[in-house]
This record gives sequence, structure tokens and C-alpha cells, in this order.
Amino acid sequence: MPVLLTAPHPADLHPVPGLRLGVAEAGVRKANRKDLVVLELAEGSAVAGVFTRNRYCAAPVQVCREHLASGSAIRAVLINTGNANAGTGADGLARARRSCDALAARMGLTPQQVLPFSTGVIMETLPVERIEAGLPAALADLSASNWSRAAEGIMTTDTLPKAASRQVQIGGRTVTVTGISKGAGMIRPNMATMLGFIATDAVLAPSLLQPLVKQAADASFNRITIDGDTSTNDSFVLIATRQAGHAEITALDSADGQILRDAVFAVARQLAQAIVRDGEGATKFITVQIDGGRTEAECRLAAYAIAHSPLVKTAFFASDPNLGRILAAVGYAGIDDLDQQLIEMHLDDVHVVTQGGRHPAYREEDGQRVMKQAEITVRVHLGRGAASSTVWTCDLSHDYVSINADYRS
Amino acid sequence: MPVLLTAPHPADLHPVPGLRLGVAEAGVRKANRKDLVVLELAEGSAVAGVFTRNRYCAAPVQVCREHLASGSAIRAVLINTGNANAGTGADGLARARRSCDALAARMGLTPQQVLPFSTGVIMETLPVERIEAGLPAALADLSASNWSRAAEGIMTTDTLPKAASRQVQIGGRTVTVTGISKGAGMIRPNMATMLGFIATDAVLAPSLLQPLVKQAADASFNRITIDGDTSTNDSFVLIATRQAGHAEITALDSADGQILRDAVFAVARQLAQAIVRDGEGATKFITVQIDGGRTEAECRLAAYAIAHSPLVKTAFFASDPNLGRILAAVGYAGIDDLDQQLIEMHLDDVHVVTQGGRHPAYREEDGQRVMKQAEITVRVHLGRGAASSTVWTCDLSHDYVSINADYRS
Repeated sequence: MPVLLTAPHPADLHPVPGLRLGVAEAGVRKANRKDLVVLELAEGSAVAGVFTRNRYCAAPVQVCREHLASGSAIRAVLINTGNANAGTGADGLARARRSCDALAARMGLTPQQVLPFSTGVIMETLPVERIEAGLPAALADLSASNWSRAAEGIMTTDTLPKAASRQVQIGGRTVTVTGISKGAGMIRPNMATMLGFIATDAVLAPSLLQPLVKQAADASFNRITIDGDTSTNDSFVLIATRQAGHAEITALDSADGQILRDAVFAVARQLAQAIVRDGEGATKFITVQIDGGRTEAECRLAAYAIAHSPLVKTAFFASDPNLGRILAAVGYAGIDDLDQQLIEMHLDDVHVVTQGGRHPAYREEDGQRVMKQAEITVRVHLGRGAASSTVWTCDLSHDYVSINADYRS
Repeated sequence: MPVLLTAPHPADLHPVPGLRLGVAEAGVRKANRKDLVVLELAEGSAVAGVFTRNRYCAAPVQVCREHLASGSAIRAVLINTGNANAGTGADGLARARRSCDALAARMGLTPQQVLPFSTGVIMETLPVERIEAGLPAALADLSASNWSRAAEGIMTTDTLPKAASRQVQIGGRTVTVTGISKGAGMIRPNMATMLGFIATDAVLAPSLLQPLVKQAADASFNRITIDGDTSTNDSFVLIATRQAGHAEITALDSADGQILRDAVFAVARQLAQAIVRDGEGATKFITVQIDGGRTEAECRLAAYAIAHSPLVKTAFFASDPNLGRILAAVGYAGIDDLDQQLIEMHLDDVHVVTQGGRHPAYREEDGQRVMKQAEITVRVHLGRGAASSTVWTCDLSHDYVSINADYRS
């Protein structure tokens, strides 16, 4: 059961001028299922992406990096579910390239103008011929208003499609930012990958795409964790069709740049949080906020130690205000000279720990009340400095074990 | 259900000359339960220990470090269950000291000659007066043949007592090594701590105790993981009563030193593995062996990435030979220049991955056969060098969630 998440309404997903989406049922792994999505980008579009740091990265991730590095104008994105094409060696690379060749031929592009993405079973051969056979239907389906169907088309074990959209005014023009994402972690046996795609028609200097996608990832997809496992295929791509008609944004910290950045961050954050809300077996959405660190890096260490602790996560599942587990996670986060006597902790508005020990006024029932909520914020103040960091996670439930222990079917 | 583990037979636990153990029911948290253990060490004994690196370490751990650093001749060990005296601030420290004062007074020692250990609920006040009241019974119970009862006396949520014993010949004398341990991880809501105590009558130069306990920990307790959470109270102590009557061992790499070291390592390994076999909800005992690394450190990174991955652990629970999850864990272990094309993997005798991809001769049913076993060895060869590392872990089951989600009762 997703936590306070509903399917996006198609009418709320604003089309992005210069971008069309097509969806098909290619039968990659199962019949009668949307499993192939094509994005067509108008001439003049700029694209940048961030990809998994897993050294066992999938073949399509390797091909994406090559094609982006080649400097070719990216004009199409090809996404399949049902097979991740990961751990497939040289043959997997050849099959990823062949899928790009096939789409490029049909669209009159070079293969380097196509970015391929795959998600699904690991270490099985990509049935590229089924993808090839599905391309005509996907191309015939191309439409600027297909965001909602595309969100469905990239789902694997997600229980709901994930999409978000914003419009802002820049230089007197309406600028749209719309995106889709799919589930985090290596969901279900071998079902891999978090994917995120955001498009905007903002007129952005192409050189700003890469810093913007990196900043947006750091403020969204890089702040979520379901189970700490980094997939072989994780990818987040930002597309600017540059058709909005306003004066080009040449600096992200200009007034217009900040408006755009805020909109991209908001969409990315909503897409990333949706992944957590729909995490495997999730019953709670947890915000872990660390303040008072010397550096953001040490705040992140503490935040992830809490967010990854199976003991903390089962306590959230049980609605148990189990302070010791959270403090112990802070203690082993790797901040060597942490002084436990300076730690303060709140559960939402309840002050539970002061000077490293239980707050004298803290009552178990107050902690219990917060822990029963579907959304909870844990705030820990390290008492060492002014840096902060926030991550979002979910609890660890029986359903997580059931989902991940199901034998691959 | 512990995995291939049975309670030790009292007759198999050889007494260690110079050491007596006493057990009592002090009612620290619950009545009618062995929860207080005293070890009495003969004059001339030497003691060394390794302790949790958690910055939120418990009061007794802080006192142990002080007393060991004071250079006082340690003559007694005081262990209580039911309360970890962790996250208790200055008051907790005072109570830990008071428990040492009380035992020292009754034994004619200084407080610095006592090492205190606590395990149980975190962030609750230690009822030190109950410990004081229980001391006469524990002291009246002192006996060299109480190892089995002491193993029971330090249990918290362990389902079985854990003890091991070896005898070796050194310089024509029989030398005994006997030890006890209790459960890993922060078992049950707020039930904290792994504890291990090993004693020998070997005549060892006191300066060799600290390197030996460190080496033994690195070969045993530091190689196990249940859920990756490091407790506030983890402690491992080595005691040498030095009464065996052979010539003093002055170097660990001498012939006699090696005989002793092997015996200590064997007992420590058995005690550590017993903790995993009795891990919360464990149904499988998993050995993760990484070979072919450039350094032992990078092999440990990969081994722990596999051993900590909830996805890998649920796959073991499901008896699912889910290769992709194991490879993905290796991929995100933090070995930056890992070449996935060089990875080889075996499940026991089954060669499942070669050159980073599925072995052509690998059949799913062979992997399945191994995964159904109660004990499984995963071997991954990184293809980068000659270093190795091994860790032991268990699977992640529904019972783990149940045990840890039970509200503290």
C-alpha cells in the first residue's frame, strides 16, 4: 500500500512542447503489458543524465554514457521493462546497441542520437527482436499528451504510476516541467532499477543541463533509500527542448535560472518521494533530517545510517518510538569524534532526547503518537556545526520480506 | 530456530584453573531469570578487551576502558542482563561505577579491578540496587565448573546458550581455552549487544594479551553480521590466568604462541559463528568469501556489501539463487575501479558466474540445490589480486521483522 500517494491525473501532466511519447506492448517478458516507451525529442533539444555508480552497471547504462559523451544531438529515448540487460557481458552490450540501431533507422537518426534504458530481470538475455518488433506501434502512438501512459509504461513492480508536473513563468512565457519515474531498489527478485525522466521546454544553455541534472539528483533521487541497495540500472535524465521562446538562461543562479531550478527540483523531489511512498512493503514515509553537523557529508552519513538500519526501520513499522536504535545508528555512522552528550532528537514536534539522554519531559505516549502517523520526521541535531542533510525512506515490513523472497516467476 | 546449533554440554566446557564463575537471579528486569554473572580472576591474571566503536557507547564500556587503562590488576568481571545502561548520560556512568564499587567492596578489591558489562534495554535507568542485592548470591555460587550456567546467565533473546572449549598441549602441560558469548545485533527492541568472554590458563606475557584479543576479534566477532547494526555495548574480553605451569609465551609467532593463538581463534570463531547461527529469525548460515582482491580491506567491503544487502538476505531466505543481487552488491561495494568482466562466482561447488556473466554450463536447478541448504558458501573472485576476506552472516526472514517489530514488553 503506497503511503499517501495516488496515481497522477492525466490532465495535471502538462505536455512539454517539443517532446512526444509513444507506448507499446512488446511482450518483452509478459504479454498484454505496456513495456516499451519511446520519447521523441525535437531538433535543438539538449539532454544530460546521471547514472548508477554501481560498478556492475548494465549494458544500456554503458551505451547511454557513450552516446552522451559522443556529443551527438540526442533525439530519442528508448525504454523497455521486463529485462534489465545487466550482467550480460559483451552480448548484452551488442543487444543494447542493436535496439538503438533499430530505433535510429526508423526515425532517420544515427544510433548515437538514441539513449537506451532497460529495467527488469538481471542476467537474462535481452529479447531485442521483440523490442524491434514493438517499435512501429510505439512510434505510431507518439503524442505530446502521453505522459500518463508513459508513466504506466515504465512501471515494473510499482503499484502506481509516478508523474509530476509544474508550470512557471519565465520572461513572460509559460515554461513547463514534467517528469515520470519508476520504483527504487532492486524491486522483486531481480527487478531492477530506479528510472527518472524530466523534460522542460525552458530555453536553457546546453552547458547548464549537466550541472542542473546533477544538482537536481542530489536534491531528490540521491536522497531516497528503500533498502540501501544500489541498482545496476539507476538513471535520471533531464531533457530541455528549448522551445518556450524566452531569452536563453545562461546561468543557473540568475533570476530566471533559479525559477527554473526550483521547478525542476520540485518535480524531481516529488518523483523521488513517490518512489519511497511506493517502496516495497512501505507503510510509513520517513523524513530523516540531520542538523548541526560540521559538514553536509557527515550529516548524510548519520542520515543514511538511520535510514538504512533494519532495526530502526522495523521499529517504524511497529510504531515503536525506539530511541535507542536511532541513537545507536547515529553512533556507528562513522563520525569519529562525535560527542554523544550534545545530541538532541525530535520525533516531529516531540523532543525525545536532550544532551544525549532521554528528555526529562518526554513521555512514551507522545513518541508513540508520532510513530503511529503515516508520515514522520526524525530530526537529530549533532551539536557540532551548522551543516544539514535530509533523506527520505520508508519502514521495513513483513511485506518487504514477502515481496523480495517470492521466487522469480 | 538456530541453524545447526545445539546447547553446549556442560561436561565439554573445561574449567580454566584460576577462574571461577558465579550466577544469580537479581531481577534486573524480570524475576526468576539468571541475569547476573560474576567472574573471579586469580591473582596474576592478565586481561585485555576490544569494545564497540559506536560513538554512542554505553556507560559500562566507558568504565571498562578506564579501568583497563588505569593499569590496575583486573580481578573481577561483573555482567548483568536486562538493562544495557546505554544512552543514560552521567547518571548511567555513576551507576556503572557504583556496581563496581559494590563488587570490589565484597571481594576486597579496588573498583578499578572490576570490569562491568551490561546488556538489555537501552535508555533506561540501571537498577543498580538490584545488582548490589544480587551480589552475595552470585559470589556464593562461584565455581570453576560454572561455564554452562554462566553462558545461560548472559543470554538475552538468544534461544540457546553459547560456549566453546579447547585444550591444547604447551610445554608438556594441558592448556585450556574456554569461552561464552551472547547474541549479536540489537536483538529485540532495545535489547542490545554482543558479548564474548574467553579465558585461558596459558602463561602468556601480559603485553601479548591486547594484540591477541585484537587478532582474535578480527578473525571472529569482527567477521559476523546479522543486520549491520553495531551495538552500543559490544565487548570481547580475553583473560589469561597464567596458571598452566609452562614456560611463559613471549611471542605470539613462537611455536607455543601459535598453538595458543590457534586455540583462542578456534574458540572465538565458534562463539562468533554461534551468534550468527542463533541470529534473529535466521534460517540459513552463510559464509561469504571474497578472493582475488588487491587488499584485504577491499575484500571486506565486498563481503559486507553482500552480507548486509537486504535483497541478498531475503533471496537466501527464499532459497532463490538470485545471482544478480549478489553481483549488484559487489558492484556498489565501493571498489571504484572494479572490472565486472573479471568476476567469478561460486555457490558452494557450483560455478555460477564467469567473466562477469552467467556461466554457460550453469543450470538454475544447481543453484537452487545449494540455496536450499542450511549452510551455504558464496565465493566471489574479484580477479584483481591475491587478497581474501571471509564474513559470516544469516538470511533475512519474516521472523526477523516479527522479532524486531514486537513492541517492547
